Amino acid sequence: MPELPSPLMSPADRTVFFVSDGTGITAETFGHSVLTQFELRFKQVRIPFIDTLDKAHDAVREINEAFEIDGKRPIVFSTLVKAELSTVIRQSKGMHMDLIQTFVEPLEQELGVKSTHTIGRSHNIADSDDYKNRIEAINFSLAHDDGQSNQNLEAADVILVGVSRSGKTPTSLYLAMQYGIKAANYPLIPEDFERGKLPSGLVPFKQKIFGLTIAADRLSEVRNERRPGSKYAALENCRYEINEAEKMMRREGIRWMSSTVKSIEEIATMILQEIKSNRRAY
Amino acid sequence: MPELPSPLMSPADRTVFFVSDGTGITAETFGHSVLTQFELRFKQVRIPFIDTLDKAHDAVREINEAFEIDGKRPIVFSTLVKAELSTVIRQSKGMHMDLIQTFVEPLEQELGVKSTHTIGRSHNIADSDDYKNRIEAINFSLAHDDGQSNQNLEAADVILVGVSRSGKTPTSLYLAMQYGIKAANYPLIPEDFERGKLPSGLVPFKQKIFGLTIAADRLSEVRNERRPGSKYAALENCRYEINEAEKMMRREGIRWMSSTVKSIEEIATMILQEIKSNRRAY
Repeated sequence: MPELPSPLMSPADRTVFFVSDGTGITAETFGHSVLTQFELRFKQVRIPFIDTLDKAHDAVREINEAFEIDGKRPIVFSTLVKAELSTVIRQSKGMHMDLIQTFVEPLEQELGVKSTHTIGRSHNIADSDDYKNRIEAINFSLAHDDGQSNQNLEAADVILVGVSRSGKTPTSLYLAMQYGIKAANYPLIPEDFERGKLPSGLVPFKQKIFGLTIAADRLSEVRNERRPGSKYAALENCRYEINEAEKMMRREGIRWMSSTVKSIEEIATMILQEIKSNRRAY
Repeated sequence: MPELPSPLMSPADRTVFFVSDGTGITAETFGHSVLTQFELRFKQVRIPFIDTLDKAHDAVREINEAFEIDGKRPIVFSTLVKAELSTVIRQSKGMHMDLIQTFVEPLEQELGVKSTHTIGRSHNIADSDDYKNRIEAINFSLAHDDGQSNQNLEAADVILVGVSRSGKTPTSLYLAMQYGIKAANYPLIPEDFERGKLPSGLVPFKQKIFGLTIAADRLSEVRNERRPGSKYAALENCRYEINEAEKMMRREGIRWMSSTVKSIEEIATMILQEIKSNRRAY
């Protein structure tokens, strides 16, 4: 199970709870960003789907137990829309950071309307068009992973190109999953470099192509994990492929960026910005 | 581009900005949860990578422009770790919701240490073990999508089973991408039902199998989008497959849940809870 990385190997300094009436993903994501500001070790516990008073009381018991064990107040990040559930959680011995109330009340003032105070729309999420688009985009991206299909590329929102293992697949899937973007991806391979041409199936769609590149030593490392000692993974070969790929992208006027020290979230965000500024669509 | 669904078809009531020194994903995710509490239409603009004073001033200009156009104060959700950047954004004509400062200061008090106030660790994210695990898990899940491979199933953290189009693939990819969980998935097909047995490759791994099921009418709808009018998509056939799959899971003692009205985030959260309570590993 993933855990927040920490510089200290000592036992956790504090227990942190993420309490939510939904999945708790928002509370956890947000809590992580805040906690990374502290060089401490946190034991993190997500308590999702707290949508009844009984469950809220159970959560309080769990929080108080942590207090007994740690001898320190647990930190509680919560996203509970219903005030009565929030009130129960506040009775725990934790330090309560209420993400909804803290911002909803000032927003009600500003917007001049009352909030609906219903449990977030997440419960109907599976029926929304937005959600269906995401699922459709995932299917599209899987069908168009690694140049598997040239069909229907006109339906793609973006087409990622780059040498094998430059980060195209995870980025495509992330764009699809989080934003409903239909992201195809297409490898640039030695045959393309010999011909000195972009794969012909891509030519009509140059406007929506984004290139990914990567540092040769990093690529060699990644490929060596896959096929240790192969020509494919050799530093020299990686250097050759990357040089050729960058040359080709430059020549064809394809926008590209390096994935070497970027996460898929960062790459995806940069691509979204590019799409947005092309379309002027917000 | 996806947009927040709204009950009103009128122009946006307000412009909302998500300003961040990183991708802005946290600010946006969090802002969405808060905004869904209001039955208003918001025009949403993410401004990522604000990591210099110049960029912060540009962002202020953009916010002020929205104020001029809308005639109403824009709402600004920000996750800017550096106080000097946050100070610049506060000078805009927007209503400022500072997600970091609001919670970091009380936490400093509580924890008795100062926050690092560096730009979040997200910039080094691509080097972290946690990140590498996620990429490795994505590769694993892709290689073990739709029963493509029986090899190395002992390395899987979970194995999802269910009839075709019950939601296994998106859930597997989500678990891998967000949590570094190696999630294989395996279809239950008519041949399995005729034999009345779980695919033999899965038998040794029953402990980590989770089943997904789905309402027959929903499944038929989803399959009809793929193969309109096919036997595969016919309601009667869907009903048969689902009955058989549920019977099999019940007989084999496999835990299962319905994906009919659940999002992949909700299904993934439930699976995480199951894994956690098995391992008692937090």
